[in-house]
Amino acid sequence: MSYYKEMEIRKYDDGGVRCAADIVVEEYPLTLFIAGKEFVTLLCSPEDLEYLVVGFLLSEGFIRGNKDIGSLRIDKERGIAEIELKKVSALAGKLYGSRTITSGCGRGPVFYNVKDSIDTRVIENDGFSIGYDSILQLMKRFDEKAEVFKKTGGVHSCALGIEGRIEVYHEDIGRHNAMDKVIGHAVKEGLDFGEAVALTSGRISSEMLVKSAKRGIPIIASRSAPTALAVQLAEKLNITLAGFVRGRRLNVYSGFHRIKHTAC
Amino acid sequence: MSYYKEMEIRKYDDGGVRCAADIVVEEYPLTLFIAGKEFVTLLCSPEDLEYLVVGFLLSEGFIRGNKDIGSLRIDKERGIAEIELKKVSALAGKLYGSRTITSGCGRGPVFYNVKDSIDTRVIENDGFSIGYDSILQLMKRFDEKAEVFKKTGGVHSCALGIEGRIEVYHEDIGRHNAMDKVIGHAVKEGLDFGEAVALTSGRISSEMLVKSAKRGIPIIASRSAPTALAVQLAEKLNITLAGFVRGRRLNVYSGFHRIKHTAC
Repeated sequence: MSYYKEMEIRKYDDGGVRCAADIVVEEYPLTLFIAGKEFVTLLCSPEDLEYLVVGFLLSEGFIRGNKDIGSLRIDKERGIAEIELKKVSALAGKLYGSRTITSGCGRGPVFYNVKDSIDTRVIENDGFSIGYDSILQLMKRFDEKAEVFKKTGGVHSCALGIEGRIEVYHEDIGRHNAMDKVIGHAVKEGLDFGEAVALTSGRISSEMLVKSAKRGIPIIASRSAPTALAVQLAEKLNITLAGFVRGRRLNVYSGFHRIKHTAC
Repeated sequence: MSYYKEMEIRKYDDGGVRCAADIVVEEYPLTLFIAGKEFVTLLCSPEDLEYLVVGFLLSEGFIRGNKDIGSLRIDKERGIAEIELKKVSALAGKLYGSRTITSGCGRGPVFYNVKDSIDTRVIENDGFSIGYDSILQLMKRFDEKAEVFKKTGGVHSCALGIEGRIEVYHEDIGRHNAMDKVIGHAVKEGLDFGEAVALTSGRISSEMLVKSAKRGIPIIASRSAPTALAVQLAEKLNITLAGFVRGRRLNVYSGFHRIKHTAC
């Protein structure tokens, strides 16, 4: 089972119809059981599932690190991941999916979700700064990697850039899953997020921003657009957010002090 | 509060930096309370929220029709929707989020989710058929409507085409929300889905397919790609699925019998 599957389809083109084989992106349901209890079903690309599960558990605040996982068994045939945790965060469990209203920025909630406020701290290391060209360079290398995988354009890609190199790269039909795979992989490798740049092909929504913020990643950059709520959160959390990073252009929406020569 | 918000950003372009106002897409958290119990938070575009809630409740199997809603009060300022149901489907409630493994097509689950199998029936009306040109015409009108709204390209659009006309059209940052808004609106208007075509700007995932299948919509078409699981479900449910509908071209992945002259 890979990212894609071949299917027999009908192709219509300006009056003519032909039967043809076409490549279609896979969508794979993986159901997570924690301590035997069914927890959630992720619809994902059927690759790097262990990284996905570890990253998901980290992002949802169920574990603080890989060491909190007692065992993780993935049954790919049945689409099941059985997880035993050494210590489960009771709070995260109780709060799962629940929400409180805060008045962030006086215009709507910032943390609309209690569990998202757990583990999410304001990023401290203002010492770390980066140039526009370095971000453009990273995105160029990120795009080159994506080219290798590109087939139907049905998947999102996500990566972690450190010291100008793409250290971790993953793809998934879901941009949230791609980010969780990158986080899970990086944590298993013991990488330091302190001077990392999170790169994504998809929109930077509040959920994407919170995922990288929880890991202490100071900069997040996307080939596409951020949402207003993601920018508000980035301002609150002292995160540098860059969008529409394409060719020789990019926009910076928050955390200007981390970008060299932002005066204008 | 609209789809977009203006923000002060830094624009970098080939060596030059300038401060500029930019339009960023809104992302609005709406929390649904059913009978006073917090149920779920939807991250959406802050428009047509009543249609979104009604469509969501229909898609999730909590109601069979608008008449099952006792009251619906939306507090836009606090991002809260308070819902009272005349009769709640206890089964749907109990099964919410749970899943059973079936052996659909012998390759992974088809209904990975029990609640998705509720209300989802095989589409019967094979009498209804449509020509390639009619689908291309509908998508053209759909694109024209999208043009009117297009600003940052940050939103997905979804519509219902009946007898060559776009009867209902909605947008949202989430393609699932856009579909739920269209469904909620159509159900409140009392439209008949029997000879309707669901149109979407985004990928046709299994969830999108199931949403339209539950309403008995026989044809679903997208400007972009379907997933393999969505095509498998469409085959099982006798639904005609068209993808990459652009200009004078389109692909048909299932339900060929509903398209005129599919022989090749």
